[in-house]
Amino acid sequence: MPATAASAALGTRLDHLSITHGKRVRLWRLLYGAGPANGTLLVLPLDQGMEHGPADFFPNPAALDTDFQFRLALEGRYSAIPLGIGLAEKYFHPYCGRVPLILKLNGKTNIPPDDEAVSPLMATVEDAVRLGADAIGYTLYVGTPRQDVELLQFQKVRQEAGRFGMPIVMWAYPRGSAIEAQGGKGTLFAIDYAARVAEEVGADIVKLHEPNDETAGVPEPYRSLRESAGQRLQRVVRSAGRCLVLFSGGSKLDPDAALAKVELCMRSGAAGIIFGRNLWQRPYDDALALSRRVHEVIARYPA
Amino acid sequence: MPATAASAALGTRLDHLSITHGKRVRLWRLLYGAGPANGTLLVLPLDQGMEHGPADFFPNPAALDTDFQFRLALEGRYSAIPLGIGLAEKYFHPYCGRVPLILKLNGKTNIPPDDEAVSPLMATVEDAVRLGADAIGYTLYVGTPRQDVELLQFQKVRQEAGRFGMPIVMWAYPRGSAIEAQGGKGTLFAIDYAARVAEEVGADIVKLHEPNDETAGVPEPYRSLRESAGQRLQRVVRSAGRCLVLFSGGSKLDPDAALAKVELCMRSGAAGIIFGRNLWQRPYDDALALSRRVHEVIARYPA
Amino acid sequence: MPATAASAALGTRLDHLSITHGKRVRLWRLLYGAGPANGTLLVLPLDQGMEHGPADFFPNPAALDTDFQFRLALEGRYSAIPLGIGLAEKYFHPYCGRVPLILKLNGKTNIPPDDEAVSPLMATVEDAVRLGADAIGYTLYVGTPRQDVELLQFQKVRQEAGRFGMPIVMWAYPRGSAIEAQGGKGTLFAIDYAARVAEEVGADIVKLHEPNDETAGVPEPYRSLRESAGQRLQRVVRSAGRCLVLFSGGSKLDPDAALAKVELCMRSGAAGIIFGRNLWQRPYDDALALSRRVHEVIARYPA
Amino acid sequence: MPATAASAALGTRLDHLSITHGKRVRLWRLLYGAGPANGTLLVLPLDQGMEHGPADFFPNPAALDTDFQFRLALEGRYSAIPLGIGLAEKYFHPYCGRVPLILKLNGKTNIPPDDEAVSPLMATVEDAVRLGADAIGYTLYVGTPRQDVELLQFQKVRQEAGRFGMPIVMWAYPRGSAIEAQGGKGTLFAIDYAARVAEEVGADIVKLHEPNDETAGVPEPYRSLRESAGQRLQRVVRSAGRCLVLFSGGSKLDPDAALAKVELCMRSGAAGIIFGRNLWQRPYDDALALSRRVHEVIARYPA
Amino acid sequence: MPATAASAALGTRLDHLSITHGKRVRLWRLLYGAGPANGTLLVLPLDQGMEHGPADFFPNPAALDTDFQFRLALEGRYSAIPLGIGLAEKYFHPYCGRVPLILKLNGKTNIPPDDEAVSPLMATVEDAVRLGADAIGYTLYVGTPRQDVELLQFQKVRQEAGRFGMPIVMWAYPRGSAIEAQGGKGTLFAIDYAARVAEEVGADIVKLHEPNDETAGVPEPYRSLRESAGQRLQRVVRSAGRCLVLFSGGSKLDPDAALAKVELCMRSGAAGIIFGRNLWQRPYDDALALSRRVHEVIARYPA
Repeated sequence: MPATAASAALGTRLDHLSITHGKRVRLWRLLYGAGPANGTLLVLPLDQGMEHGPADFFPNPAALDTDFQFRLALEGRYSAIPLGIGLAEKYFHPYCGRVPLILKLNGKTNIPPDDEAVSPLMATVEDAVRLGADAIGYTLYVGTPRQDVELLQFQKVRQEAGRFGMPIVMWAYPRGSAIEAQGGKGTLFAIDYAARVAEEVGADIVKLHEPNDETAGVPEPYRSLRESAGQRLQRVVRSAGRCLVLFSGGSKLDPDAALAKVELCMRSGAAGIIFGRNLWQRPYDDALALSRRVHEVIARYPA
Repeated sequence: MPATAASAALGTRLDHLSITHGKRVRLWRLLYGAGPANGTLLVLPLDQGMEHGPADFFPNPAALDTDFQFRLALEGRYSAIPLGIGLAEKYFHPYCGRVPLILKLNGKTNIPPDDEAVSPLMATVEDAVRLGADAIGYTLYVGTPRQDVELLQFQKVRQEAGRFGMPIVMWAYPRGSAIEAQGGKGTLFAIDYAARVAEEVGADIVKLHEPNDETAGVPEPYRSLRESAGQRLQRVVRSAGRCLVLFSGGSKLDPDAALAKVELCMRSGAAGIIFGRNLWQRPYDDALALSRRVHEVIARYPA
Repeated sequence: MPATAASAALGTRLDHLSITHGKRVRLWRLLYGAGPANGTLLVLPLDQGMEHGPADFFPNPAALDTDFQFRLALEGRYSAIPLGIGLAEKYFHPYCGRVPLILKLNGKTNIPPDDEAVSPLMATVEDAVRLGADAIGYTLYVGTPRQDVELLQFQKVRQEAGRFGMPIVMWAYPRGSAIEAQGGKGTLFAIDYAARVAEEVGADIVKLHEPNDETAGVPEPYRSLRESAGQRLQRVVRSAGRCLVLFSGGSKLDPDAALAKVELCMRSGAAGIIFGRNLWQRPYDDALALSRRVHEVIARYPA
Repeated sequence: MPATAASAALGTRLDHLSITHGKRVRLWRLLYGAGPANGTLLVLPLDQGMEHGPADFFPNPAALDTDFQFRLALEGRYSAIPLGIGLAEKYFHPYCGRVPLILKLNGKTNIPPDDEAVSPLMATVEDAVRLGADAIGYTLYVGTPRQDVELLQFQKVRQEAGRFGMPIVMWAYPRGSAIEAQGGKGTLFAIDYAARVAEEVGADIVKLHEPNDETAGVPEPYRSLRESAGQRLQRVVRSAGRCLVLFSGGSKLDPDAALAKVELCMRSGAAGIIFGRNLWQRPYDDALALSRRVHEVIARYPA
Repeated sequence: MPATAASAALGTRLDHLSITHGKRVRLWRLLYGAGPANGTLLVLPLDQGMEHGPADFFPNPAALDTDFQFRLALEGRYSAIPLGIGLAEKYFHPYCGRVPLILKLNGKTNIPPDDEAVSPLMATVEDAVRLGADAIGYTLYVGTPRQDVELLQFQKVRQEAGRFGMPIVMWAYPRGSAIEAQGGKGTLFAIDYAARVAEEVGADIVKLHEPNDETAGVPEPYRSLRESAGQRLQRVVRSAGRCLVLFSGGSKLDPDAALAKVELCMRSGAAGIIFGRNLWQRPYDDALALSRRVHEVIARYPA
């Protein structure tokens, strides 16, 4: 991409932000210096070992060795790989400078129930800086009864990230007993609110799930809405405002379904795609092949 | 306004306060340097996206883009726009110096029940200083069972604000199971107590709702009171002491009802009006037109 | 008072204390430099607006304006006026140096139930120093199920006060479900224990309520005691050890009853009287007249 | 005692410890510089006013005045007097340098139930240093459901004490609902565990109660043990390892029973005796006489 | 071992780690400078006195004196001895430099139930550095309902350990009501998850129990697995990734069974063995003899 084009694109994504040079440098690297490099993001997350346990690796035991994902991120030209402190410290070594790192700062196991979910810090912004990460990842459980704990913890992280010029990628997940009592964590109501919260609390990029079409138990005016899948995606993209939206793949789909999802998300205004299990639960070569097909789609949505 | 008049007015509002020069400068800007500029305040808040979710924008989807409110604040000559860290960082850029910012420091979603409501910090006084805000906004849930958490958190904010000379605008909201058991959050009992608490804990300006005339379940001596709407407003203004009182508009009213409310509030001693949904849930031109009519009313109550 | 007499008196009250010069200076001002100035204390508190709400001002609405109490404290020659940070910042200005200030550091509303009462900090010792206070006021809820929170918070305040040489006036209030299960907060058992706790935790001056003669539910050996009102007062004065005891007036009494109470308290060894509602719930002139009569009684108990 | 003897004795009690010179100096003062001065300890505690209330002083009202205990400690040649910050600040003055002080750092009232007992800090190691104390006293509730709070708080105290070379005397008290469900706080099981915990967490000296012979509800292998009173004492002394053990007197005994208890404890390997109510609930002269008889016993167990 | 061999071996175990020189030095000492000195670990823990109480010493009362374990660690050529702050401060003195110390930072008694288990800090990384430890030990209760507390506390320890170059040996223990509801703490599901968590949170070495073959109540896909004891061990070693795995002995086995267990664990990829009660619940000479036989097995698995 010629400098002028990059500059223009940078304008589209970055110029309106009142951010330090450090954050601008790192966001540029993610959007234009790696991955699709056209202002979009293709992200390969690996937090499932902590969040779900080793069970997620049963379909493809080779993926238990984190080198698998790093290699895939490199050869599959991913924008970044988000993972936790333990994996970063043990496996990032040979990929430093070649694959952008998003250090996932918080996490938890899924063993206790999620009624009052909170996601404690497992690393700090300082760790991210020390490890040469280009962003931090942070999970916020939106609407959990313990939201005071969640928001306070994030506040400190946001402020620290601001000081270091570290972009924030937020996993904005509706969660907890109150959201379950209002239709569940996958509804448009829940995800639309989560999108807005991400913007309100100061995320730069937000990872969201695709909202379902469930309306039972959902509060108005959402209960009466009847929107297509694309309209729902567009709505949450608008609610996220100037947060760049990544839609996630969720559990493994067949390749064509996965690609159709990518297409729909990008057409709806997403800034990119974050695909974990859809990729690394496949054999390496299949994962690489699918990655290439995803690139072809994303290439049609430069920003 | 000639310097002498300003000086006299400043005396009325500010001279009795034992405050640093920094706070005096900022309060002067809010009261005499922007908005009606006659010692009153006309404030356009935008914390509803966090507090209520995107549903509040359904009547006027254009308002989802925070630029809408900033533009309205500028062209409608508002004294200030209060909003959270995420919106300030992403949308304040082109309005710096032209629209005073009140950085709302705390907030929460309305997804979990409010029985034991607390409002966690989402930003700090340091953020407000860095962003060039002219005041901080703070929500205190008066009478919540977790008031120890609420008051302790505010204490630290107040002390920090004092050090930086940052005025404090308090959203003093009766809230929680105990207040519900005593007649609810909208009664004169509840709001009158909240007004006093704002003064006691050290707010400079307090936002209050207009008290209703409900007396069921309310403790004495309030239960036996029979006061007009105007008398109730005057009472809470007196209870707020030397805190300047802003009355809020609440949900959308028709323009004439809104103007009547403004008139009544100002006549009852309010220092100003804080109108959010009443403004930005209307099309831009309607909102601007209504803003002008509000200015006409307020202009008759200089201080 | 000639220097020699003052010196002797100071000995009586202060010589045994291992305190810094700063605390000695401030205690001297309270005991010999203001109010009765004979080693006793006459204190006019104003924390009821926070603790009880504006309802306490209904009998005398003029008292809603804190200037009322400051004026009364000045003209009625009170030893000090204790109030919170908000009132101190807004109303102390014209009285600086003329009326000693006791900055009340903690407080709460009475809206939620008191079963597990705690009283959070609303200001700090640093605030007291900055405002020129001569002491800090602190409420300790003795015997509350959350006594660990209460005692830890006080510990930090005591240590900070020690560093700055700031005397501590403790409102030692038995409170909470456990004390209610043992006869209630007003019994000799409860108040006698509170008096000792004040001495044990490091208060300089303790405000106590007059114990009632209730014995139902009270533990032994208190249940079997049958003591006169005067004996009960003497007992708690002894239990407070070298803490100076202030007895409080409680709710409004008729003037003669109030004076009889003062007489009995002083005769029982109290160091002084703390009268709030008994004073400022009366019209100004009545309050001033009663203050003078109280002075006459107290003048007969120099120390 | 000639220097050589002292040096040998010091070896017995102190040489194996990896401690700073400051701690060595202070332990030497307690063991060889005061009290029996033969490597044993005779300690006169006064924390009951806080822990039990003024009721403990009913048998001997003169003891309400803390000067009583200080005088007794001096004339009765006690190794040290442990008490809290309030008493130390108000009564230690004339005894500085003449009676070693153990500043009791934490405490609570006995008003709320003990099911989830914790003992909050009421003073700090810094206070102890400032007051010239020769050790700190600390109560640890072993086995309470809130042991995480208890242990974390102690950890900080231990580390601070280590930095200042301040010996730690631990009141190791089994307490709480879980210990009650396993036979109660007085069993050999409970006290043996407490002795070990004191050693494990880093106490230098541990105060323990004499274990009873109750086995109902106690876990194995303790339930099947049938040991004499002396065997039980020896067992806990062994479990405390290199912590010096003080056995407490508990409530008042007749003088001969008290002396028999001292004899048995010392013969079982205790480093000393801590007798509070057994002493100061008696008239001064009786207390002094009993102290002398205790000295005669202890003198036969030099270390 | 010649330098070249050591260097190669060091590569196997250490080269991939992005760690400071300090950590490399200490890990080298544990793996090649002490114990089997062939890249494996033979560890003699002594945290049972705190975790289980003195009952664990009933089979061999001589072991109550911590000198027993230190002597055994020295003469039995153990890689390290992990124990708490109190034991380290009192017994490590004569063994400094001769037996590597792993300072166990947290712990608790087993008196209260484990439903919501947390393990509070009893010492800090700073203590470990001061005492000359070669690693810290840390217990993490995986899946406990209070995992937020557990993970946050560990986060701070990990970061501090990182700064000082202190290796982390994690006791990764599934624990609490939620894990009990999913088959219990000993299942492959539970221990496999714990292994992964240790790697994810940043442990260097993890101590795990051998998983049982229980499947009742266990979630899929584990419920359907039917694996041999060796296969289960291999699985958890793989799940621990680049964390070195120590399998624990658990309660006392007969010598041949213990040796068979060692053989199986080492063959399954363990980096070593951690045997406490299996050793020090035997008479000294038996323990020493068994240690020698364990060495013979381990010598066949250099790394």
